[in-house]
Amino acid sequence: MKTVSANQHLNVHACSLNEYDRQKITISGAIYRIRKLGGGLFFIVIRDGESLIQCKLESNESIISIEEYSEGDYVSITGICQKENRAPHGAEIKVQSIEILSKSTEEMPFSINQKLFEVGLDSNLNFRPISLRHPKQRAIFAIQSAISMLFRQGLSLIDFTEIHTPKLVFAGAEGGANVFKVKYFERELFLAQSPQFYKQMMVGVFGKVMEVGPVFRAEPHETSRHLNEYTSMDLEVGPIKSFEDIMEIETYLLRYIFEELPKFCSAELKLLEVSMPQINNIPIIKMSEALEIISKNRKIKDRSDLDPQGEQIICQYIFKETGSEFVFVTHYPTIKRPVYAMEDPENNEVTLSFDLLFRGLEITTGGQRIHDYKMQVEKMKRLGYNPDDFVSYLQIHKYGMPPHGGFGLGLERLTMQLLNLSSIKEACLFPRTINRITP
Amino acid sequence: MKTVSANQHLNVHACSLNEYDRQKITISGAIYRIRKLGGGLFFIVIRDGESLIQCKLESNESIISIEEYSEGDYVSITGICQKENRAPHGAEIKVQSIEILSKSTEEMPFSINQKLFEVGLDSNLNFRPISLRHPKQRAIFAIQSAISMLFRQGLSLIDFTEIHTPKLVFAGAEGGANVFKVKYFERELFLAQSPQFYKQMMVGVFGKVMEVGPVFRAEPHETSRHLNEYTSMDLEVGPIKSFEDIMEIETYLLRYIFEELPKFCSAELKLLEVSMPQINNIPIIKMSEALEIISKNRKIKDRSDLDPQGEQIICQYIFKETGSEFVFVTHYPTIKRPVYAMEDPENNEVTLSFDLLFRGLEITTGGQRIHDYKMQVEKMKRLGYNPDDFVSYLQIHKYGMPPHGGFGLGLERLTMQLLNLSSIKEACLFPRTINRITP
Repeated sequence: MKTVSANQHLNVHACSLNEYDRQKITISGAIYRIRKLGGGLFFIVIRDGESLIQCKLESNESIISIEEYSEGDYVSITGICQKENRAPHGAEIKVQSIEILSKSTEEMPFSINQKLFEVGLDSNLNFRPISLRHPKQRAIFAIQSAISMLFRQGLSLIDFTEIHTPKLVFAGAEGGANVFKVKYFERELFLAQSPQFYKQMMVGVFGKVMEVGPVFRAEPHETSRHLNEYTSMDLEVGPIKSFEDIMEIETYLLRYIFEELPKFCSAELKLLEVSMPQINNIPIIKMSEALEIISKNRKIKDRSDLDPQGEQIICQYIFKETGSEFVFVTHYPTIKRPVYAMEDPENNEVTLSFDLLFRGLEITTGGQRIHDYKMQVEKMKRLGYNPDDFVSYLQIHKYGMPPHGGFGLGLERLTMQLLNLSSIKEACLFPRTINRITP
Repeated sequence: MKTVSANQHLNVHACSLNEYDRQKITISGAIYRIRKLGGGLFFIVIRDGESLIQCKLESNESIISIEEYSEGDYVSITGICQKENRAPHGAEIKVQSIEILSKSTEEMPFSINQKLFEVGLDSNLNFRPISLRHPKQRAIFAIQSAISMLFRQGLSLIDFTEIHTPKLVFAGAEGGANVFKVKYFERELFLAQSPQFYKQMMVGVFGKVMEVGPVFRAEPHETSRHLNEYTSMDLEVGPIKSFEDIMEIETYLLRYIFEELPKFCSAELKLLEVSMPQINNIPIIKMSEALEIISKNRKIKDRSDLDPQGEQIICQYIFKETGSEFVFVTHYPTIKRPVYAMEDPENNEVTLSFDLLFRGLEITTGGQRIHDYKMQVEKMKRLGYNPDDFVSYLQIHKYGMPPHGGFGLGLERLTMQLLNLSSIKEACLFPRTINRITP
């Protein structure tokens, strides 16, 4: 929707600047930098939501007094667009007039107009609305935005339907104590740890469903890989022939995302010097094999789960052996998986489940779910749940449900690993941790 | 992703059935209905996630005993596809073999295989996982899914960036007492009433941002138009020239959604006999004019807001006068709008804001926001807020923010009005109200 201003100058965005050579145009944005060149010449660099625009103010434009303007002011600049190879997007604007749309009232707490963004994590997060204006910070979230869009798009192409499920829930789906409680009128509800029960219910309706939305985990520790609220990209599908179908879908989907991503944010990928992973087939190993590999490096204390160091060892090993930066680890122990996890009929101590590791970090948990009513009720009782508390969930099992499964893919974790960030907080616009609740 | 099963039969979905005339194929789904035709002939109708599939079982297939199967069972059927004009999608399957993937264990609480869905709202919602399997209930959410997808797609086309903002917040953005409290470790947080503060922050970064996500309103009454958790389709944009720019974007967007919708769910729109609204230009009237129109019909008690009946009178009037099923009502009183609302410079008792009414119901609230630091701090103080509680939000005003605005469009309300549903609960997969917390 290109709009034409009252005075008939085209309002142009940064990225399409080079289409307007020798035309009179108007651009708007924040003053990013003012640079005196000598001889009464100034560069005013404008940041417009997409990118940077170089504007040249010559001395004979004496009606414009440069002292009136400061970094952060929002302005509208009218002038002649002209080719200039050294400018961003190959063009600059010869300024004829500047209109201030809004004044900045204070000097920024730190500079956002340097090539590098050298601000500590705490300041970065404390001043998030400002730090995100730095092109490199902005780029992280342009890429993240494209990833979640491509997740849905890739699944739409293979007939998945998007659903919107409640975050205020009557029971935590994932078990454990890490649920936040909400005072809901005279009752108590929980914040959803995942859309698990709901996406399963919707498999009975649409067969293939997906959702990108917030999930909440009340984990009382602060690490570089945990957030207390994050964006989960979920899918669930049935009927399936085996839990390997789900890994096949995830492989297809990641391949799709990484192939399409450069079409939507090549400038940002370049700016952050992102090394894109190549996905052909993703290797699959069993948890027991993974433990074997780790045990060659160091002693294993807990054979029921992989710890962060264990995940790194596995990824290094797989990369060396196969060249893949991804690996599926399957057959996690039954005691470590939630009540809905389908157990391996050949060995009920393990489940038909998987994690996906990417560059040393788990980014997905998935697996096949129980679809049989009796089996689900028995497992609930065995794990100390009261099936009466789950009457509405158990409707799916009671009235016919196909063999099904799915996974959740953490958007911030995928972003963090793709962009090689050192903390997951850098991969979240406004992170929530035990110690951080603002902005 | 078409998959080929081990025995080389194509696995086919309902909608592409007619491409496989005279081929041996396999389909999967739930048994929707078994009909005895006499002469040893049976129809088995299968519901897959897309639609219904008619299968014909002939008596000479004596290896198959029909008594084994009941409604709700998930089966995989292999047979020869053949053209049949009277069947859904113009084709049926001559059954050769049936494999049960999963048995239903109980008879359904109500029938889902009748043309009409004649189940009361309470039963519908109590047995939601089952009622949603009825083709007419399923259709509501296929359409809703397409609407939210088209909202984002329409905005992507005009350079909006999708954001993911936190739902656990330190302050309610919309004012009032209707916020849910969350116990967050040793502190108390709130559930976001809207992504307002965050989308404003992101205007300073991307210029044009959008989000489709859950919002929470602790309104302690149950009506046919309120949910305590709903899906808000939000956008925010800057710089703008006036608050009319925002209404222009919404007009473009609704036109886009309604033009594209039939491409994605024509079968569902037909099944629900949906009358699609035509959008050219949407009429705009001031709140004061709206009150004039209402006062010709009945006495007005409260001149600061429109009540449900008032909204209906306005819509009837506008439809009669202009043929439009939509109308923007602008300049709502300052006392009725949140602390961030921009006041009209010509009359500070009203704001540069609007509601959009559709077929008698408000579906959008929007407007221009304050971008000036001093103006925002003064308004906060005037309304009894402590600006110190909003330090991180006020960064955007302090360090330079363009004139900007946006709106929120309620997905369930839009769905309800488009499909002519009598309660908003019918337009939500798993509604949350003061009295309803399951499923």
